[in-house]
Amino acid sequence: MTANVAILGASGYTGAELVRLIATHPGIRITALSADRKAGQQMADVFPHLRHLDLPVLATIEEVDFSKIDLVFCALPHGLSQALVKGLPRSVKVVDLGADFRLRDPAAYEKWYGAPHVAKELQAEAVYGLTEFYRDDIAKARLVAGTGCNAATVQFALRPLITAGLIDLDEIICDLKNGISGAGRSLKENMLFTERSEDVAGYSQGGKHRHLGEFDQEFSVLAGRPVQIVFTPHLVPVNRGILATCYLKGDSKAIHAALTDRYAAEPFIVVLPYGQVPAMSHVQGSNFAHIGVTGDRIPGRALVVSTLDNLNKGSSGQALQNANLMLGFEETAGLMAPPVFP
Amino acid sequence: MTANVAILGASGYTGAELVRLIATHPGIRITALSADRKAGQQMADVFPHLRHLDLPVLATIEEVDFSKIDLVFCALPHGLSQALVKGLPRSVKVVDLGADFRLRDPAAYEKWYGAPHVAKELQAEAVYGLTEFYRDDIAKARLVAGTGCNAATVQFALRPLITAGLIDLDEIICDLKNGISGAGRSLKENMLFTERSEDVAGYSQGGKHRHLGEFDQEFSVLAGRPVQIVFTPHLVPVNRGILATCYLKGDSKAIHAALTDRYAAEPFIVVLPYGQVPAMSHVQGSNFAHIGVTGDRIPGRALVVSTLDNLNKGSSGQALQNANLMLGFEETAGLMAPPVFP
Amino acid sequence: MTANVAILGASGYTGAELVRLIATHPGIRITALSADRKAGQQMADVFPHLRHLDLPVLATIEEVDFSKIDLVFCALPHGLSQALVKGLPRSVKVVDLGADFRLRDPAAYEKWYGAPHVAKELQAEAVYGLTEFYRDDIAKARLVAGTGCNAATVQFALRPLITAGLIDLDEIICDLKNGISGAGRSLKENMLFTERSEDVAGYSQGGKHRHLGEFDQEFSVLAGRPVQIVFTPHLVPVNRGILATCYLKGDSKAIHAALTDRYAAEPFIVVLPYGQVPAMSHVQGSNFAHIGVTGDRIPGRALVVSTLDNLNKGSSGQALQNANLMLGFEETAGLMAPPVFP
Amino acid sequence: MTANVAILGASGYTGAELVRLIATHPGIRITALSADRKAGQQMADVFPHLRHLDLPVLATIEEVDFSKIDLVFCALPHGLSQALVKGLPRSVKVVDLGADFRLRDPAAYEKWYGAPHVAKELQAEAVYGLTEFYRDDIAKARLVAGTGCNAATVQFALRPLITAGLIDLDEIICDLKNGISGAGRSLKENMLFTERSEDVAGYSQGGKHRHLGEFDQEFSVLAGRPVQIVFTPHLVPVNRGILATCYLKGDSKAIHAALTDRYAAEPFIVVLPYGQVPAMSHVQGSNFAHIGVTGDRIPGRALVVSTLDNLNKGSSGQALQNANLMLGFEETAGLMAPPVFP
Repeated sequence: MTANVAILGASGYTGAELVRLIATHPGIRITALSADRKAGQQMADVFPHLRHLDLPVLATIEEVDFSKIDLVFCALPHGLSQALVKGLPRSVKVVDLGADFRLRDPAAYEKWYGAPHVAKELQAEAVYGLTEFYRDDIAKARLVAGTGCNAATVQFALRPLITAGLIDLDEIICDLKNGISGAGRSLKENMLFTERSEDVAGYSQGGKHRHLGEFDQEFSVLAGRPVQIVFTPHLVPVNRGILATCYLKGDSKAIHAALTDRYAAEPFIVVLPYGQVPAMSHVQGSNFAHIGVTGDRIPGRALVVSTLDNLNKGSSGQALQNANLMLGFEETAGLMAPPVFP
Repeated sequence: MTANVAILGASGYTGAELVRLIATHPGIRITALSADRKAGQQMADVFPHLRHLDLPVLATIEEVDFSKIDLVFCALPHGLSQALVKGLPRSVKVVDLGADFRLRDPAAYEKWYGAPHVAKELQAEAVYGLTEFYRDDIAKARLVAGTGCNAATVQFALRPLITAGLIDLDEIICDLKNGISGAGRSLKENMLFTERSEDVAGYSQGGKHRHLGEFDQEFSVLAGRPVQIVFTPHLVPVNRGILATCYLKGDSKAIHAALTDRYAAEPFIVVLPYGQVPAMSHVQGSNFAHIGVTGDRIPGRALVVSTLDNLNKGSSGQALQNANLMLGFEETAGLMAPPVFP
Repeated sequence: MTANVAILGASGYTGAELVRLIATHPGIRITALSADRKAGQQMADVFPHLRHLDLPVLATIEEVDFSKIDLVFCALPHGLSQALVKGLPRSVKVVDLGADFRLRDPAAYEKWYGAPHVAKELQAEAVYGLTEFYRDDIAKARLVAGTGCNAATVQFALRPLITAGLIDLDEIICDLKNGISGAGRSLKENMLFTERSEDVAGYSQGGKHRHLGEFDQEFSVLAGRPVQIVFTPHLVPVNRGILATCYLKGDSKAIHAALTDRYAAEPFIVVLPYGQVPAMSHVQGSNFAHIGVTGDRIPGRALVVSTLDNLNKGSSGQALQNANLMLGFEETAGLMAPPVFP
Repeated sequence: MTANVAILGASGYTGAELVRLIATHPGIRITALSADRKAGQQMADVFPHLRHLDLPVLATIEEVDFSKIDLVFCALPHGLSQALVKGLPRSVKVVDLGADFRLRDPAAYEKWYGAPHVAKELQAEAVYGLTEFYRDDIAKARLVAGTGCNAATVQFALRPLITAGLIDLDEIICDLKNGISGAGRSLKENMLFTERSEDVAGYSQGGKHRHLGEFDQEFSVLAGRPVQIVFTPHLVPVNRGILATCYLKGDSKAIHAALTDRYAAEPFIVVLPYGQVPAMSHVQGSNFAHIGVTGDRIPGRALVVSTLDNLNKGSSGQALQNANLMLGFEETAGLMAPPVFP
């Protein structure tokens, strides 16, 4: 079986990562690549590391013939997918890597993204794409909303603990260290090499980051009551990776047991032995996530650290994992390459 | 006036940083440099960036003539200063950059460092070297104990808040991002370029880091009751710098006002306007520290972020600032060079 | 078909890279891993990025049962393979990643490596492992000597030009920029993060690097006369990658044509359009090599730039490519994953 | 004595570096800072690392009162200084850090910069700012043209050798490794952290780099005949620094002797003992340059490696050194701070 896919927004990093992953996938063929401003160029001109691949020329979205396509990956800037997906034939499945369909509540969407949603019926239909927790719904979905990369990292650490009632819901503090590729390929002075190299700095501090909308939505459902976490991301000078240090109140041994148990059968989520510390470099370039648990000298406090590759498991790897389910492939197809270290 | 100083342990990074800073000091002359295993070598062989300076040959400690020396900087590995300082003539002043004299309580020392202190009378005499808070005592001291670099970073953020009773003392969580030079120049597999580059990982997690001894000591005195903080350092791939993200319960505006007020007259501590976020790259290479305060969407929560250069303000710069006081120089002498950016 | 392999020296970077590549190989099973000093440990303890794999425990070489093994990869420090391979049953094929069998001439070996070879009959038997130029011999060989990583990078640029007589053989200058993983995982002060980060420096300058032995051997055979090149490697602060800038005298258009023609059918060697410049980041994490050619404003001068991943195409990828040929697999099996960028 | 200076183009990296250096200068006061697009902002908003300094608000050039200014540093983009300097009162001295006055020949300027010069009389008047070779002229000049940063690095290595007739003028090959700050602070996709981190790539290959105009001019004068060198810069992932590896034909011992002799009395140029290799990290953050010489196993070949900090000795440090001469200060004033390592 071969499935034909299009990647819209192929000139960004998540688009390129999808191409990279699909290159060794046994059953997916890329039949269209779009990139509005770079339409007409070869992918090799935009991403020379993919030069050896035989790929379609970059096109505008208008030029894509969706009638021959089984599934579309939308790797577009936030806000552009809504109208686009609305216009696609219903026969085309969609995995959206952006933020447009992550929040189910139109009011929440408008609050965090500053504008009303233009495809509210699709917003209601979309399945939240955290594969390990929405697997069955994703397999049946027509439209899947990829999660935020930070949102995935933290949810892997916390969901089983909230479900099991193991932690104090009013005392969740998540300090994140974020690789720079999370900012994409757009031109911003503070993303220049000279500005980020040798630097660490927080951003969106104080409860302003949009991924909080996802945490609010998901954790409140799990807890059956409103949950708000403290969440501070920091830019660190690495290309890929997110490492979330979660400061919790709960029993660290019980927390470790719950996570170990929950992820025992998961192919991509690795819970380290109690007391071991995960490192960003142990997951980079892969679809794997590592989670570690330690206690503290202060009784009743626990540290859960979760790490993954933001472009891969946090975005394009997750998208492919979901597409595999939607298209009937083995869930792990194209995703088993180990991390690249060093 | 010219003061003669010796630097013991000159082949490590803090020793080299002292030489660098003293090179432009108007009144200090380096008359001896010791480095046991590298004795006999020129400093230029060990640190080629100092080649243009006219410096004494590296000697063993035994070869140093302390009779002509006004002040000794001990930049030795932990545990070696105790016996050494005991043997020095009382006429020689001492600034110790290591951990040997940071804790005043012999039991606390033994708990955190795993061996009884061998110079308990000096331990009692030593003044804690956080200049901005022990200035008068330091000026009169014979023996000053440099603080831990993490300990300095966090104390700049928290001391005025504890003193003013502005924060919940049982809910202090400090997440640190640490440049690699803090590990010194000794050979460890996990400090190789290939292991640290592109990586972020926590260490000494769970209340095991020795700098907790300093926090316990200092914060409990300030609060008049035992205080224990949660403190997790993380290695980030930068050479220099510590950035401490402190999660607090308190009023963020009052916190900002208290910090601004406390440091208004300090030459090296800069409190940013409310809501601005400090960056490690804005203090590297200098004796300056930057502090920023933001609120959170959750009422009653505040974020205080503090950053400094671990080799400079966190160690050798602090040591020189203290030596200036002890020797009667202008406190800022040799220390006003702005940070190096980018 | 499944082939059983052992990896000797699995605790080094090239050993780990072999495990990483074989993890997605369709026909190779790792049945033994050796690491003398770390024998008894799990691979997950030594390389946590491989934790999800089901791998044999690290053993001493003595503990390995070679009777069940089809092929051995030797990723041992230079000098250790000679005696070892001598003692293996002749039924076991060998790919040596070290330097022990690269030079065919015992005198040349002794000159560059400072000691007589202890297995001269094997030295004579070994096939030089530059796959694209020794493919047929490799397929029939029992013992293949992996090339030096620098040696591979430069030979891809120069061999077709020497063969075709397109360049002045007395005016070949190769300036290399080398990622730090080439130095392996052993403890050296100058390989600490703090020493290599933010630095560039040459090493083995002036014709002292051992890979010159390979260049002398190979280029002189191709040219039918002695050829000596100028070759200077430089450490640059990246984990993986070698970029060789080759300054040549010859016609740049003819050079480009010759390279394009020679590599047209090669799956892993990509020659860029004339005038385009290769980048290290376009091959990292992969078995691909990129080559670019430009002219100069001075007539008769040309620039050929070649880049590859030293751990992959320069070492472990090459080794697997050779093993594929020796074991009857598709040459590209397990090696088609595109580079990881960014 | 206090001199009043203005820095035009203060929002770029060389402007900020000037402010940093002048901050500890004993006799220079900054009375105006211009930055057209950021006029009205505080320097602390544009460069937070300079926050502790008391500096004038950023202004437009039109707002600057040049009547009170002794010397102007122009750190403007190429092409903007010509007309500007033309309009300044003759009483104001000028150090231009850009390219506008580096070439004395109007035809050469037009060839390399693509447009005719608009102030040819000033072009003729300007003194080339390589302090160590134009010291006396600079001291008397009204207008000094700062050299290109690459141009300075290579000239320190080659000028004494050309003057002494020690090298083959037709066989000079200079391979440069360039820190990213050389590209300035302007927004370019290929200067993003994600594009430059972990990468090495050449640029302006093949004799197209504008600094060749300076080499042609200077070396041809020294040699008394046309000289063209091969020159290839490469971007390496460090913030600051240029390391030039110069492949020469000549006697390496004689070359070393000539360089050692020439620079013996220079405060900022350090020639290493024969055979020692310079490193970029040994000069970063300072006005020092290091030069090393090695031979090669091929007789008659030599390697001269030169390294400096492009923002400091290669640009702003050189500018201040020249301004010191022009204003009657000690040449080394404000410039003696040692390099920052690690």
